[in-house]
Amino acid sequence: MTTILPLLDQDAGACCATVTGGALDEADAQQIAKVFKALGDPTRVRLLSLIAASTDGELCVCDLTDPVGLSQPTVSHHMKQLVDAGLATREQRGKWAYYRVTGGALETAARTLLPR
Amino acid sequence: MTTILPLLDQDAGACCATVTGGALDEADAQQIAKVFKALGDPTRVRLLSLIAASTDGELCVCDLTDPVGLSQPTVSHHMKQLVDAGLATREQRGKWAYYRVTGGALETAARTLLPR
Repeated sequence: MTTILPLLDQDAGACCATVTGGALDEADAQQIAKVFKALGDPTRVRLLSLIAASTDGELCVCDLTDPVGLSQPTVSHHMKQLVDAGLATREQRGKWAYYRVTGGALETAARTLLPR
Repeated sequence: MTTILPLLDQDAGACCATVTGGALDEADAQQIAKVFKALGDPTRVRLLSLIAASTDGELCVCDLTDPVGLSQPTVSHHMKQLVDAGLATREQRGKWAYYRVTGGALETAARTLLPR
């Protein structure tokens, strides 16, 4: 008897390419590297950790400058790279921008480094 | 009665700092970012995936140039960054350098992105 198994990996497509799951093509490698490039800077790693550690899971750009000792334009520039990589979300409320860590984004990034 | 539990996280020290496990200090953030900086380039991601996908888990630099379409010095330069970040190991045998993905290194990197 033949058992038919669901082809989950194939259905999920390029979202599930992993570093150790076979030789990557350029497009998948670019997608994976984009996220890690955003994570490849100590200030950005600290900014994410500050937001994740905050009581509401959200911080104003005005609360991020002091802990990392950088100006607001510099913090905003780093945050833009995290937002562009899909790791954070930004919401403008009045004068200030508020940031959150994108739900599931770090887990998805981690999964690209783990065996399938 | 008091039960004494082993303090595994504390014993393991800075190795176990995670992005979402509390506000990171500069030293931990630098250590985490160093690995992701190495992973933040599509060519390096492809090189790692090629090595991981190889039959013996090891590839000669001479086997890496064609698949990524780059010269040997350029491939060696990328591989040096992966070795420096602890993601690959290098062994010189005769004329050629041979590379492996460091056992457990990708899993350790992934763990810094996951909830404890």
